[in-house]
Amino acid sequence: MAADLLARLKSVNRDEVYSNAWLTIPSSWTAEIMARSGFDLCTIDAQHGLMDYQTGLSMLQAIGNTKALPLIRVHDNAIPNLMKWLDAGALGLILPMIDEPEQLKQALSACYYPPAGNRSHGPTRAAFVTHPDYRYHVSGDLLIFAQIETASGLEQVEAIATVPGLKGLYVGPYDLSISIGRPKLADLSDPVLWSALVRIAAAAQKNELLLGIHTSDTSRIPDLRALGFHIFSTGSDSHLLMDSAKKLDQELRG
Amino acid sequence: MAADLLARLKSVNRDEVYSNAWLTIPSSWTAEIMARSGFDLCTIDAQHGLMDYQTGLSMLQAIGNTKALPLIRVHDNAIPNLMKWLDAGALGLILPMIDEPEQLKQALSACYYPPAGNRSHGPTRAAFVTHPDYRYHVSGDLLIFAQIETASGLEQVEAIATVPGLKGLYVGPYDLSISIGRPKLADLSDPVLWSALVRIAAAAQKNELLLGIHTSDTSRIPDLRALGFHIFSTGSDSHLLMDSAKKLDQELRG
Amino acid sequence: MAADLLARLKSVNRDEVYSNAWLTIPSSWTAEIMARSGFDLCTIDAQHGLMDYQTGLSMLQAIGNTKALPLIRVHDNAIPNLMKWLDAGALGLILPMIDEPEQLKQALSACYYPPAGNRSHGPTRAAFVTHPDYRYHVSGDLLIFAQIETASGLEQVEAIATVPGLKGLYVGPYDLSISIGRPKLADLSDPVLWSALVRIAAAAQKNELLLGIHTSDTSRIPDLRALGFHIFSTGSDSHLLMDSAKKLDQELRG
Amino acid sequence: MAADLLARLKSVNRDEVYSNAWLTIPSSWTAEIMARSGFDLCTIDAQHGLMDYQTGLSMLQAIGNTKALPLIRVHDNAIPNLMKWLDAGALGLILPMIDEPEQLKQALSACYYPPAGNRSHGPTRAAFVTHPDYRYHVSGDLLIFAQIETASGLEQVEAIATVPGLKGLYVGPYDLSISIGRPKLADLSDPVLWSALVRIAAAAQKNELLLGIHTSDTSRIPDLRALGFHIFSTGSDSHLLMDSAKKLDQELRG
Amino acid sequence: MAADLLARLKSVNRDEVYSNAWLTIPSSWTAEIMARSGFDLCTIDAQHGLMDYQTGLSMLQAIGNTKALPLIRVHDNAIPNLMKWLDAGALGLILPMIDEPEQLKQALSACYYPPAGNRSHGPTRAAFVTHPDYRYHVSGDLLIFAQIETASGLEQVEAIATVPGLKGLYVGPYDLSISIGRPKLADLSDPVLWSALVRIAAAAQKNELLLGIHTSDTSRIPDLRALGFHIFSTGSDSHLLMDSAKKLDQELRG
Amino acid sequence: MAADLLARLKSVNRDEVYSNAWLTIPSSWTAEIMARSGFDLCTIDAQHGLMDYQTGLSMLQAIGNTKALPLIRVHDNAIPNLMKWLDAGALGLILPMIDEPEQLKQALSACYYPPAGNRSHGPTRAAFVTHPDYRYHVSGDLLIFAQIETASGLEQVEAIATVPGLKGLYVGPYDLSISIGRPKLADLSDPVLWSALVRIAAAAQKNELLLGIHTSDTSRIPDLRALGFHIFSTGSDSHLLMDSAKKLDQELRG
Repeated sequence: MAADLLARLKSVNRDEVYSNAWLTIPSSWTAEIMARSGFDLCTIDAQHGLMDYQTGLSMLQAIGNTKALPLIRVHDNAIPNLMKWLDAGALGLILPMIDEPEQLKQALSACYYPPAGNRSHGPTRAAFVTHPDYRYHVSGDLLIFAQIETASGLEQVEAIATVPGLKGLYVGPYDLSISIGRPKLADLSDPVLWSALVRIAAAAQKNELLLGIHTSDTSRIPDLRALGFHIFSTGSDSHLLMDSAKKLDQELRG
Repeated sequence: MAADLLARLKSVNRDEVYSNAWLTIPSSWTAEIMARSGFDLCTIDAQHGLMDYQTGLSMLQAIGNTKALPLIRVHDNAIPNLMKWLDAGALGLILPMIDEPEQLKQALSACYYPPAGNRSHGPTRAAFVTHPDYRYHVSGDLLIFAQIETASGLEQVEAIATVPGLKGLYVGPYDLSISIGRPKLADLSDPVLWSALVRIAAAAQKNELLLGIHTSDTSRIPDLRALGFHIFSTGSDSHLLMDSAKKLDQELRG
Repeated sequence: MAADLLARLKSVNRDEVYSNAWLTIPSSWTAEIMARSGFDLCTIDAQHGLMDYQTGLSMLQAIGNTKALPLIRVHDNAIPNLMKWLDAGALGLILPMIDEPEQLKQALSACYYPPAGNRSHGPTRAAFVTHPDYRYHVSGDLLIFAQIETASGLEQVEAIATVPGLKGLYVGPYDLSISIGRPKLADLSDPVLWSALVRIAAAAQKNELLLGIHTSDTSRIPDLRALGFHIFSTGSDSHLLMDSAKKLDQELRG
Repeated sequence: MAADLLARLKSVNRDEVYSNAWLTIPSSWTAEIMARSGFDLCTIDAQHGLMDYQTGLSMLQAIGNTKALPLIRVHDNAIPNLMKWLDAGALGLILPMIDEPEQLKQALSACYYPPAGNRSHGPTRAAFVTHPDYRYHVSGDLLIFAQIETASGLEQVEAIATVPGLKGLYVGPYDLSISIGRPKLADLSDPVLWSALVRIAAAAQKNELLLGIHTSDTSRIPDLRALGFHIFSTGSDSHLLMDSAKKLDQELRG
Repeated sequence: MAADLLARLKSVNRDEVYSNAWLTIPSSWTAEIMARSGFDLCTIDAQHGLMDYQTGLSMLQAIGNTKALPLIRVHDNAIPNLMKWLDAGALGLILPMIDEPEQLKQALSACYYPPAGNRSHGPTRAAFVTHPDYRYHVSGDLLIFAQIETASGLEQVEAIATVPGLKGLYVGPYDLSISIGRPKLADLSDPVLWSALVRIAAAAQKNELLLGIHTSDTSRIPDLRALGFHIFSTGSDSHLLMDSAKKLDQELRG
Repeated sequence: MAADLLARLKSVNRDEVYSNAWLTIPSSWTAEIMARSGFDLCTIDAQHGLMDYQTGLSMLQAIGNTKALPLIRVHDNAIPNLMKWLDAGALGLILPMIDEPEQLKQALSACYYPPAGNRSHGPTRAAFVTHPDYRYHVSGDLLIFAQIETASGLEQVEAIATVPGLKGLYVGPYDLSISIGRPKLADLSDPVLWSALVRIAAAAQKNELLLGIHTSDTSRIPDLRALGFHIFSTGSDSHLLMDSAKKLDQELRG
């Protein structure tokens, strides 16, 4: 079923909105909870989340062929790391801290097989859980996002957006607001941050890229959609649990 | 700090209310989230939860460093199982499905050292994380609850409540309502279920026992407090996450 | 999809044959390999296999996302153990070493909710991955097999087969042949062992029970089908790997 | 190599002394450290230690490759539990809290195949790492010890020692001293405790049983050897590490 | 025993053929199965396999001192990664995607202690399981293979083969055939691919290097031996299990 | 409580001596043993130790808020790796093999948020277990040590010591003695090695840096204190256990 979604996402239809769960708890059970709660995408955040590869693999299995499509936000854009996650069956990657096109080209070379890239052959789990001819039927459609979250990435977003093989841009407004020197973290009412989003959205639209944001304020989703954003995540499973736990503690005290 | 709470609980002061987190996710990180969210007690539900002993141990370690007091709701009242959890550093146990006094006496014999019981000596982690003389300074104060959740347990609650070594009663209203043949699960507005709670509370009060309930309806906590209940839990970490995840998915779709 | 199979199995159609993978490797990845290799059923052998509950849970998750239906061959028929596997999402259990009806009745009481049994309420994963109303829509259809593999079990198979709530018989010919004093292990050409199978099959047919066997000799499957057997397993994942590894070692040496 | 030791132990030669490491840390690496440090036997203490089956299996694997012979001190004498450890490749078991002959007979029935007992066939790892014909060449020689550590066990030690299939007695002086009402824990200078050891040793000698003790005072080993004890353990890996860590902390402070 | 093999391999005797198991399942039990099935070498494939370091460590323990010699095919030639696997007790490494001599020199610097390289001192497990003076008696003999599997690596194979400290070449025909633009994957009947193998073999022979190949077609092993290849692997444990599972499923359906 | 120690360490008071436990066993239980044995600091040695990130996280939880302060000796100074350990709640890092100032500047950029560095925002566990405003109240005080253990690092130690954001120097005398060509490993009586320590200490004192050493000879601690060293570690938990195990084996043999 995730394969259907993969196909649908290829069309980059901005009338469709996609919810994206953000997983930081290192647990296949919480991954299964999230994957069965309705989200279109489930991103295992291997950067700021608390899992590494082995636990991430068990989470990929749990997300498995629920209807949610599993992505990895990698902690490191190094080539061997990207290949290992794709072989494990991730159907897409979010590459953090993309500063300029050359860095992205290198990372993308790890994601595609020759001649498009230099990915080494060996899709151990990927082929078994998607298609026996994964190499020819799946590997070209993987959802690779560049995360725009630094001043440098913003300055070069137009060039970044044209790198062949890129499928989408994903905004990290926390790091972006810090990096461009804004006084508040990810404040969507800050006009300087907002104009950065406008610029990034324009680059995505021009290149027919998917466009996502880890938004700090879900009330602004309509405004973000107006810019062309159509993939939304916020917070994390850890924060969902923390926040609801604190409320429950108060509730139990009467 | 949990030691302070242990001491405070000994006094069975019904003016104090205690919140109790209910852990079913097999993860030391979610255990740490729950333990740092304000709850007085954290119960690792090894019965209906998804962890076993080894993961439970890692959860005890994560709770161990907070002010929350760790309990285990065991999946089996068999003697070797109870001993193993106590040696791991649990400061209390909730014993499910207590039907009659003899069954409880047997279980309690596993919890206390001779002459009070037959617990085998070897508090490997328990002594190291509480007191070098755990045997003499901690082991007698362990919080052992009998869970009243069957028709038989209800019928014999007065006798159950007098078994030496018992520290509290804990009501499981889901199983109890089923067992006494009520049409709805854990419906606190059902007068037959409510009168069962009244009866259990009376037995606890008479024997100066702690009194808890895994309530299905937190709005009734004031009424429950009036009966003498002062330890409250509800739902579970899995349900907190599921419920908030489903809401978030809707929110992200705008 | 496994739910469809569950429904189909209810009809006890002996014209349909079901393959059953036998899992002894404690790994969610090998479980996923087996579950995606075409088998109808995947039995996690928690008795002679090398996994315990926590690893078994990860295997249930890996199987969960395929069309294969997950069973547990438990290591212990004790009530708390049976409940814990069912709460984890097993859709059936194979109960080893069933010697007589009373023992089976006790075990079955753990599998069904009141009034059919005494299963405690708390289907933490089971409800989430099958049906929100698991209690009413799934729990009654669980596939509970009694394993007939002792002289005593054979002697009382007619009575065992009539215990309410039982869904099938499963023959363990290794233990059975030993227990009835045959000189060879699981030798299907032994007429004494074969007549035991005839007797067991008759009891299953009379009570419209599913009928499976962990056969030692797949060449006899047609003969077994003629008796009414329609669920077949053999060897284990460990043995598949061992045998093919030894062959490969020889092949590589040329 | 452990197989050689198994053979040597069969002869019950009291001139040979055997050191026995006591493992409570749930880790295959510390198990490997202990197994390579010179001990003849390595006992995984699943009773008061902090491991369960899955971790214990990894410890058996780590010990498996050394000359040390792996034993399990089980936490529960229940039949399914004993079988599962033996299938995992334990070459012996120490059964705690043996109070009387009938209890021991039941436990031993789980350890031996018919006709000696009722052990279910399926030595998944045991056969692969010892002998393809494990059933005929290894399973009869397993080292099964009854632990004498209760007043009742002491009272019936002569009868316990004659139960067929028993290979040795192992004294737990902590629990024994408590159970027989001595004021100090495991005080070998206490004449009442000492005379209990004399009595146990006599029963072992008369029945040509191996004889071990988890001694609290290694300076008394010569005296214990004079009684016929020849297998010695003390403390645990956890305590070795704790004690040396505390000393090191002081040493580093100068 | 693996130490004996290490010594034998040093002589680079092409009359001896070595079988090499290829491990991609993240499990110490399947590693033990493979290591005890007769193979001379066991390669933990950390590149396309599904394990990371922690699981790989448990696999190294299971391979332990069976007679099989444990190698790691690393996922990343970065210096810290190579050191960490060697400290864990790997007796050799297969370095993927070696394109040119300088890259290899850097990687080799991580494998040998000064003055031969810059490996940091701390052979935590390596020394304990091989030789107390590992630094002087083992570390110089580690089996380090460069994997030739890119067009660039092929073009520079003569220079690569002369880098001091290199012990062998290992061909990855899948990636190699892709990288040199062949239409089929690893087709050994393709004369262009075959002539590449001839060239690589010549470089190995000239420099007295061990010579291995992950062959796609075991029927060609005699031809490969004629070129000087004497270490052979194929497929993986995952594929062995998948293939035999699919066959078994069919067999069980009759 | 660790927070108090963090504050105290900021003052760089050389009259205070700090003991530092060195953890190489991949286990949260041994980490808890070490953390509760009196040490001020607990360093998880992810370089030569046998744990990776996931196990290291469980060890950080066990060290938790005991009074010991958790450090990581990373295996790789790569930026994504440093960020991931800090997000997990490490309160300091020891960076191995620092050769020159530029390398250190890059590493430090990963440790501090803008404008001091480029650390990406997402202190998932760090914020939850220290301070909700971790970014402003904790992240600036993290204890980042450069390890001086190469000839190059020694030659440039004065420049290294002035890199902004550095909090301390830590000497690795094993690698240092090898790297500067001394005949013995870490021989503190070697005047050439000693004069290297003098030089390093002078650089630390001049820049008011903390100063630690993984000393090979604790009898020289007074002399080292005279140079300004005040943080001391030696050996490892693995070695403590190995050494005491070997002694115990001998003791048990009488």
